[in-house]
Amino acid sequence: MLVACVYVHVLPEYRDAFLTATLENARNSIKEPGCLRFDVNQGADNPDYFLLYEVYRDEQAATAHKSTPHYLQWRDAVANWMAEPRQAVRHVGRFPESEEQWLTRGG
Amino acid sequence: MLVACVYVHVLPEYRDAFLTATLENARNSIKEPGCLRFDVNQGADNPDYFLLYEVYRDEQAATAHKSTPHYLQWRDAVANWMAEPRQAVRHVGRFPESEEQWLTRGG
Repeated sequence: MLVACVYVHVLPEYRDAFLTATLENARNSIKEPGCLRFDVNQGADNPDYFLLYEVYRDEQAATAHKSTPHYLQWRDAVANWMAEPRQAVRHVGRFPESEEQWLTRGG
Repeated sequence: MLVACVYVHVLPEYRDAFLTATLENARNSIKEPGCLRFDVNQGADNPDYFLLYEVYRDEQAATAHKSTPHYLQWRDAVANWMAEPRQAVRHVGRFPESEEQWLTRGG
């Protein structure tokens, strides 16, 4: 599994708009055949920080995501709402240990 | 949902031992009734960096995790394997939008 963490620091006045746009992106992204998870998380200590936790079956699926209408719409909509450029960090998923477990609870 | 990200930078010589110990912790943690996910991720660009992505039903479940034998064993085992102190960041899960979806694919 390819796990991408996208860290976003939004301007406080756009926080709610960012969450709304990102939830819409998430609802569509999770329907992509190669997207196993698309969790949207908001900082518990500072609600201006978001973490998008995106899991793709492989590199091809991660690349395909960036060509979808919902991704492109989200990217353009939020471009001016950030306090600083967003950061993406990629990981190799080690647990759960099977693809089926990634699709369910993991245990 | 309460989403805790634990960032760990391990010493290269303990990387494999850390992964082994952490997988064992994950296999047990995901069986806790209040633990919905316990993903173990290794940096794609630098395998000495790990991200534990832990999702708990509530504060009580997150607290309960820290009293389990498997957590305590992991904590003690890895204590001297880190290049710097580990960092934990807490989030409020905004998507998936229902608990049932956190347990499955999210869509």
